[in-house]
Amino acid sequence: MRISSHGADIFTASKESGIDENNIIDFSSNINPLGIPENVKKTIINSIEYASRYPDINSTKLINSLSIHENVSGEWMFSSNGAAEAIFRIALYLKPHNAILTSPTFSEYEQSLKTVDCNVKYYNLLEENNFEIKEDMLDIIDKKTDIVFICNPNNPTGQLTDKKFLEKIISHCKKTNAAVVIDECFIDFIENKEHYSVHGLLKQYDNLIILKAFTKIYSIPGIRLGYCLCSDTKTIAGIKESGPPWNVSSIAQEAGIAALEEKEYVLKTIDYISKERNYLINELNKLYIKTFDSYANYIFFKFDKLDLKSEMLKRGILIRSCSNYRGLSNEYYRIAVKKENENKMFIEKLKGVLVKK
Amino acid sequence: MRISSHGADIFTASKESGIDENNIIDFSSNINPLGIPENVKKTIINSIEYASRYPDINSTKLINSLSIHENVSGEWMFSSNGAAEAIFRIALYLKPHNAILTSPTFSEYEQSLKTVDCNVKYYNLLEENNFEIKEDMLDIIDKKTDIVFICNPNNPTGQLTDKKFLEKIISHCKKTNAAVVIDECFIDFIENKEHYSVHGLLKQYDNLIILKAFTKIYSIPGIRLGYCLCSDTKTIAGIKESGPPWNVSSIAQEAGIAALEEKEYVLKTIDYISKERNYLINELNKLYIKTFDSYANYIFFKFDKLDLKSEMLKRGILIRSCSNYRGLSNEYYRIAVKKENENKMFIEKLKGVLVKK
Repeated sequence: MRISSHGADIFTASKESGIDENNIIDFSSNINPLGIPENVKKTIINSIEYASRYPDINSTKLINSLSIHENVSGEWMFSSNGAAEAIFRIALYLKPHNAILTSPTFSEYEQSLKTVDCNVKYYNLLEENNFEIKEDMLDIIDKKTDIVFICNPNNPTGQLTDKKFLEKIISHCKKTNAAVVIDECFIDFIENKEHYSVHGLLKQYDNLIILKAFTKIYSIPGIRLGYCLCSDTKTIAGIKESGPPWNVSSIAQEAGIAALEEKEYVLKTIDYISKERNYLINELNKLYIKTFDSYANYIFFKFDKLDLKSEMLKRGILIRSCSNYRGLSNEYYRIAVKKENENKMFIEKLKGVLVKK
Repeated sequence: MRISSHGADIFTASKESGIDENNIIDFSSNINPLGIPENVKKTIINSIEYASRYPDINSTKLINSLSIHENVSGEWMFSSNGAAEAIFRIALYLKPHNAILTSPTFSEYEQSLKTVDCNVKYYNLLEENNFEIKEDMLDIIDKKTDIVFICNPNNPTGQLTDKKFLEKIISHCKKTNAAVVIDECFIDFIENKEHYSVHGLLKQYDNLIILKAFTKIYSIPGIRLGYCLCSDTKTIAGIKESGPPWNVSSIAQEAGIAALEEKEYVLKTIDYISKERNYLINELNKLYIKTFDSYANYIFFKFDKLDLKSEMLKRGILIRSCSNYRGLSNEYYRIAVKKENENKMFIEKLKGVLVKK
C-alpha cells in the first residue's frame, strides 16, 4: 500500500481511528468549502452519456474555454489529470539533472524529480523569516541548475512570494538556461492575486511554466483536472508526448468547461475564505497558538504540546500534521478553511483538547 | 495540436468532414456496443456527491473488488488512468534500454519507450503468416533485451497468440532478465480466453506484467480506468511511485467496482460480439474483401481499391485506416464490431462505395 505523504487521506484516517470515512470532517485537504457548483454537477451528469466515447485527446473545447479564461493562446496550454500529472510530465520531458526546491514545499515536485534520477538542492525556508523566500535564494541558482520549483502561495506554509522577486528568479534562470515552474494552484483564493501571479510574464519568459488546478477552487479533486501554461510551444508539445494521450477524462473536460463559467462563485469564495480565515486565525491566536501569515484557503500553525492530529481525529476531525514535510517537524500543522459551522466546530473541539476536564 | 495516431478521433473526423461529431458512427474505436451497463451509470451519478473529496490514492475498495475478480492478491495490482497510463509508468519505472515490439501493434508501447530513450527492435508480423507471431520471435530476444511487449489479441490485427507459446517467451525472458508485458485489454471479448490468457502464469513468473482495461469491455473509455498485474510487489510499488498519487478519479474507482458486478453483461457481450463479428466477416468476404482471422471485437481487413476511410466518412461512418501503424500500409483497415443495426448500416454504406451508380 502507498502511504500518503499528503493530507486528505480520510481512507487511512478512517482505518486508524475506526470512524467511518463519512463521519470524519476533513480539514487536511484544502478544497473550496462552498462545494461543487450546481451547474458543474449537472454538466457531469449529462456528460455520462458520452462516457462510452474516448475523450478528445486535445481537450479542444476545454482548451478553447481556458484560452478565453486565461487570455493566452491554446497552444500555450496542456490539460492534465490533475496538476500533479503535469508535474510528473514536466520532469519526464525535461529530464533535469539538478533541481532547486524550497523546503518545505509540496512533496510531488521531489517525487517527480526522483523518477528521472535528478539531484535536488533545497532552499530552506526559516521560521525566523516567517517561512518567506528571501533574496538569497538567487545565490543558490547556478549554471548547473536545470529547474526550479516554487509554490505560490506555498504549500503548506501559505506564504506568498511577490511577483517582482519571482521575475528576478525567472530572469536569472533564463540567463543560466533553467526552467522555472511556478505552482499557482492556490492563487485563485487570494484577494490581490495580480501582485503575485506571474501570468503576465509568460510571453516574455519561455522558460516559465505555470501550474494551475481546477481541483481546489472548484471543489472537484475527485474529478482530476489541472493544466499548465508555457509560451514555448515546443515545451508544451514535449509535455504532451510525455504520457498517455487520453489523460483527461471526458467528464473532467466537460466539468472544466462548466466550471470556467462560475465567475460569481469564485468571487463569493474569495470573500467567504477571507472572512473564515480571519475567524480561525483569531480563535487560534486567542488560544495562544502561533499561526503564520496565511493568504490561501489554509492556515499553517505551530503547536508543541500534544499530538494534535491524533487528539483531533479522536474527535472526528482530520487535520494535516506537517511532520512528513521535508524541513518541518511534528510541531507544525495545516488546516483548511472550511464552512462556517465546521470552523466553529473545529475551534470547539480544539478547546476540548486544550482544556483538561 | 496532437495528431491522433489512433482511431476514435471523431473530433478530428468531424472537423475534416464538416459532419457534427454526434452524427458520426464511430467504427474506429473498439468499444463494447452494448453501451455502459445501467448500474454503472447510476453508480457514476451517485459518486458525483463525493467528487469534492480527493480520490483514495490506493483505490482500496476497487482493488479489493479486483482482487476477488482476478483471484490474486491486491498487492499484485496497480490501478491506472486507463491502461495507457500503466504503459507509460512501466516504461518510466523500468527505464529499459532495449525493447522488442511486434510490428504492427498498439502504438503507445513505442511512444512510452521513447520517453525514456529506449531502443526498439521489431518483430515483423507478416501477411503470409496471417500476421501471427511465430516461433522465430524467440530468436530476436537476447541478453540485451530489457522488455518485450505483446498485445494479445493484437491490435489492430485481432490475432491471438497461444498461451503455451507465450510461456516460452516469458520463460526465456526470465532467464535473460527481461520483463514481458502482455496486453490483455481485449481478451475479455474472447470466447475461450483460458487458452490465451497468461493470467495463470503470474505467480510463476515475476517478470510478467499483464495489462487490463475497463475501457473496452465495460464501454467506459471516457471514464479512464485500467490496471496491471504482476507478482513482483517491488515492481508494483515502483510503478505506483512513477506518477502522481491521485491518478484514478473517484468516479472511475466507483464505476469500476460497479462494473465488476456485471457478469451477465460480459457473457451477453461475448455472444453478441461473436454473432455480429461473423455477420460482418461474411458480408465483407461476400464483397471480395480479404479479412484476417479476428477473435476480438474488431475486424482487420485489406482493401486496395479506394481510400475507404474518406469514402466512408463522407457517408457518416468513421473507420480506422491502419496506414499509420508501423509495418502497415494504406491498404489495411480496422473496424469495430458494433450494434446489429449499425453493422447492417455499415455494410449498406460500404456497398454504396463499392458499386458505382
